[in-house]
Amino acid sequence: VKRTSSHLADGREIIYFDPDDAESREIIDARKLPSVTSNSELRYDFLLDEWVGIAGQRQERTFLPATDECPLCPSREGRLTEIPSSDYRVVVFENRFPAFSMNAPDTGPFVDEATTMFARRPAVGRCEVVCFSSDHTKSLADLSTSEMRLVLDAWVDRTAVLSQLPEVAQVFVFENRGEEIGVTLGHPHGQVYAYPYITPRTRRMLIAARNHHERTGRNLFDDLLVAEQLGPRVIERTEHWTAFVPAAARWPFEIHLFPHRRIPNLTALTHAELDDFADLYPRILRALDGVYDVHMPYIAAWHQGPCHFIDSADSALAALHLQLFSIRRAPGKLKYLAGSESAMDAFVNDVPPEFAAQLIRKAML
Amino acid sequence: VKRTSSHLADGREIIYFDPDDAESREIIDARKLPSVTSNSELRYDFLLDEWVGIAGQRQERTFLPATDECPLCPSREGRLTEIPSSDYRVVVFENRFPAFSMNAPDTGPFVDEATTMFARRPAVGRCEVVCFSSDHTKSLADLSTSEMRLVLDAWVDRTAVLSQLPEVAQVFVFENRGEEIGVTLGHPHGQVYAYPYITPRTRRMLIAARNHHERTGRNLFDDLLVAEQLGPRVIERTEHWTAFVPAAARWPFEIHLFPHRRIPNLTALTHAELDDFADLYPRILRALDGVYDVHMPYIAAWHQGPCHFIDSADSALAALHLQLFSIRRAPGKLKYLAGSESAMDAFVNDVPPEFAAQLIRKAML
Repeated sequence: VKRTSSHLADGREIIYFDPDDAESREIIDARKLPSVTSNSELRYDFLLDEWVGIAGQRQERTFLPATDECPLCPSREGRLTEIPSSDYRVVVFENRFPAFSMNAPDTGPFVDEATTMFARRPAVGRCEVVCFSSDHTKSLADLSTSEMRLVLDAWVDRTAVLSQLPEVAQVFVFENRGEEIGVTLGHPHGQVYAYPYITPRTRRMLIAARNHHERTGRNLFDDLLVAEQLGPRVIERTEHWTAFVPAAARWPFEIHLFPHRRIPNLTALTHAELDDFADLYPRILRALDGVYDVHMPYIAAWHQGPCHFIDSADSALAALHLQLFSIRRAPGKLKYLAGSESAMDAFVNDVPPEFAAQLIRKAML
Repeated sequence: VKRTSSHLADGREIIYFDPDDAESREIIDARKLPSVTSNSELRYDFLLDEWVGIAGQRQERTFLPATDECPLCPSREGRLTEIPSSDYRVVVFENRFPAFSMNAPDTGPFVDEATTMFARRPAVGRCEVVCFSSDHTKSLADLSTSEMRLVLDAWVDRTAVLSQLPEVAQVFVFENRGEEIGVTLGHPHGQVYAYPYITPRTRRMLIAARNHHERTGRNLFDDLLVAEQLGPRVIERTEHWTAFVPAAARWPFEIHLFPHRRIPNLTALTHAELDDFADLYPRILRALDGVYDVHMPYIAAWHQGPCHFIDSADSALAALHLQLFSIRRAPGKLKYLAGSESAMDAFVNDVPPEFAAQLIRKAML
């Protein structure tokens, strides 16, 4: 894969991903842009022992622009977008409205008011946008295997590069799709968040894996994968991946994709595993849209281990997997996170996982 | 307060709350109803060490009925509702589509498939609906102090009664308001969930409180309340309650209401504390609607300690408080839980808590 890095008018980095034999690119962003400022910070929630991002400037971010004003389409005569080229395959650039930024102001590492119950630190890190295709009307599900493979190359690259930054604790590669889920841009794209802390869900998974290991001597993810492969909720099992609806799915349609080899993150995937995934994943996304013959809003989240393990025993605990889920529970109905889920973290799922698996499998044919 | 308990045609309990001097009620539900069945179960999510409810039959529940078909309005000639009376003040009844039920089928305490990675148990417990007023057009914010006080009496009663059930581990009193948050009935009402397990958020708060005590010798909730009372985010401080936007608020508009006396649950509130809250709370709800002069969708969640503490030292850790929050971040914009929040539990809040507090305080005038 050919990788071309440049900078936008305001200094943000942009990286093009092209096939190896592609022509070289010259990138000049002719726009006049004010420099990106950030006033994000992290505050500590003592009630739950978790960091929370507070990002004031994001209120002004671009909100459902008309199609002919899409900032992720290629630039053309008279209309310059975030992508200063007339065409592209896959492109990644730094978000103009980042929740985490290397420019986050330093408000002092810990500010204490009278008591010690107020802690904050700069929301350093990085937020990137990954454009999957220059075609505004496409979806990840529509990509060919080779197009999907190039997206994977970009995901692997971003994980490798961002993991090296000393400020970054965890790299999160994800896609939000659908207005129902709050997506403000219709162009096919995903995002990368490089967090300066280990996210709460990852922390909890690591604790669960450590407890499981202490109790059984075995690895939690290995045991889960074997159990699900034997169960009635498998969507498809290929040479290198198994896709299944987990037994205790929280969401109406939730699919986990596990590689058969336990590895900590995307950078450890072999070419064969990447090729296999590039074939499988768009088919699963199409099946998801096929369940009710409507575009399904979804979140696709790559769970990866932390970048820097203090304890090497812990690094064996993390396991790369993709969590794909939709909030649609029926053609005209969405699953909302109301009191039980939002306030108590107690999920109630109205679609039995075995039934969901059956519907998705049927749509795979 | 006068309490009248009876049963609906299908055996579900219904309880009326009236002022002491009210006439006695005769309650006869003349409908023909099939008996309530439940096929809910709890499944264990080993990845996160948490129970998840799987409730297949709820897919059919009543969905945004027309106003003249509201099942929570009083019954009248020719149209019988869930409330078999021509009028009521506050009424509580068992949900017809319960996520947790004493009738949940026993699928065996733990079913193991090949491996030990699949655990489930019946979703025993109870789900109740609390009607705040017989007036379909009212909202909790519109209630007079004495009407609000009667709602509080019902909340206290339900906490006391449900806590006594050996199957119940935690009683959750809450209100979801607004279609934006998935509310399927417009009539002013809240809910009570009596869970057969301690919810994930409560577990985490207890762990945080225990860690804080070990580190400082002090109580986490006491320290937080003192810190917030000194901070710039107080909405109002009355004799018995302080309402504030927490320093690390996760939601655009989030208010916590703490009683000044640390107590484990609603049943420990004194008459003075209840009276004080009945005056304060509707004013805060009106202020929330006043921020943008639109009805705010919100979730109001009473955090209460578990019913049965194994360790008595732990019971001192829990602290009753109300968490009230809205997903509206601007007049035309909602906060969606997308990838970072839904998949990683990593929250990014676009409205700085000090700014939110300022807007709410202004609307209190």
